[in-house]
Amino acid sequence: MTETVPVADAPPSRRHALGVEYDGGEFSGWQRLSKHGEPDRPGEPTVQSAVEAALSFVAGHPIEVICAGRTDAGVHAACQVVHFDSPATRDPRGWMLGATSRLPPAVCVRWCVPVADDFHARFSARARRYRYRILNRAVRPALRRQYLSWERRPLDADAMHRAAQALLGENDFSAFRTVHCQAPHARRELQAIRVRRDGDVVEVEVQANAFLHHMVRNIVGSLLPVGCGEQPEAWIGELLAGRDRTVAGPTAPSAGLVFLGPRYPAEWGLPAEVTL
Amino acid sequence: MTETVPVADAPPSRRHALGVEYDGGEFSGWQRLSKHGEPDRPGEPTVQSAVEAALSFVAGHPIEVICAGRTDAGVHAACQVVHFDSPATRDPRGWMLGATSRLPPAVCVRWCVPVADDFHARFSARARRYRYRILNRAVRPALRRQYLSWERRPLDADAMHRAAQALLGENDFSAFRTVHCQAPHARRELQAIRVRRDGDVVEVEVQANAFLHHMVRNIVGSLLPVGCGEQPEAWIGELLAGRDRTVAGPTAPSAGLVFLGPRYPAEWGLPAEVTL
Repeated sequence: MTETVPVADAPPSRRHALGVEYDGGEFSGWQRLSKHGEPDRPGEPTVQSAVEAALSFVAGHPIEVICAGRTDAGVHAACQVVHFDSPATRDPRGWMLGATSRLPPAVCVRWCVPVADDFHARFSARARRYRYRILNRAVRPALRRQYLSWERRPLDADAMHRAAQALLGENDFSAFRTVHCQAPHARRELQAIRVRRDGDVVEVEVQANAFLHHMVRNIVGSLLPVGCGEQPEAWIGELLAGRDRTVAGPTAPSAGLVFLGPRYPAEWGLPAEVTL
Repeated sequence: MTETVPVADAPPSRRHALGVEYDGGEFSGWQRLSKHGEPDRPGEPTVQSAVEAALSFVAGHPIEVICAGRTDAGVHAACQVVHFDSPATRDPRGWMLGATSRLPPAVCVRWCVPVADDFHARFSARARRYRYRILNRAVRPALRRQYLSWERRPLDADAMHRAAQALLGENDFSAFRTVHCQAPHARRELQAIRVRRDGDVVEVEVQANAFLHHMVRNIVGSLLPVGCGEQPEAWIGELLAGRDRTVAGPTAPSAGLVFLGPRYPAEWGLPAEVTL
């Protein structure tokens, strides 16, 4: 005899959104490499697996999460957003604290809010923001080295800022996309980019509707020769127009990059830091 | 036949000061636990041993360093200052880069300057500054957790600031000194203390002519009950007057503490950040 669960008796599934913070230096990126429900491959821990395992424990059943933007190995997140569905009756604080208590030290859940069933962490997002930090001094960093890249040549942050403005607007970003990028096309709307110096740290902050694979790190890698005076400010606009990845600067290291988070329209009722 | 090196032929020894940055989370504190020239005991790496080994390699002879202020296990330094003597002819940049290249990733030499023979990293210092950072939110930190402590109860930073002002001036700080403190007396001049909130981080910055063992962490540990509303603002002044360590707050964790550095009179010609 086969047992079937009548549909009418199944408790309704409820969708929640989570704000997830992580230190990417401890992970092989966001995306799970093993099958759902299976542990990470040895030596290749992923943030997605860690979050799913923690939520599944709290829920008492297997949970899959969908994120706003996958991050590469070594890239950090201040507020990655994910959504998941579960019929388990936990209040938002229970999900947040329960999951965090099951997560490794490099990951935590900052908040949890119930959302409408048609909220989608990836497709509902209208913008994503990243920050890249470069320690600009003669000697490599020791303190906070987990969160900095390093450039020993003096950088002109103002020149980098002016050059970067050529990227604003809807453009084909082929020049700044890795060859492994699987996106169907390279058009993205770059909404804001700012480069500024704070002491011996040069900080690049950038917002776009979405990003191509390695796009921020490739933009930073091309702004560095401008900051060092090796390339003129007009070079960034020329690279963009040329659409040729092979002539742009190298990919900047992952440690300096933090995914600040996505932004959603206000009607989803998410916390202010991820709302437009 | 015994060979003796004539004194007249020995090259003159030259004193240098170094600014040293380190991530204390990777060390059992500053002070070397093994004999000079011997490696650290297994599992107990010290910053002093690491710096001495790197300088000795660059110099080609054993070097001992003297620091401005020893830090405990887990405590960081933005600019520890040390001095050492060597007859080796290296320019300051050579000491800085050579030593840094031999140091583990958690330590670097930020600068090196030649100093007068009577400069002493410890005795010439007129002030020391520390900063303590507390992440104040419901969930423990993941990003930058190496450099933060954590308090889940909401803190009133303004109340902590007002309470802390009772510590200003030359006082007997017995209430905030660990029982293991070996200083001959507990009088110190607390020159400035400021508590302020920056988003979800509460930051305590304090300057004194010198500090007792655990003094900053014990002050922070006593400011926390004031910030939570468990103790009145006047409690800090009462603790100070009572000189009784057993009634003050617990020692705050090491991860939140950074030794910003000592301050010297201008005549020593050191970089601005360590000059009064």
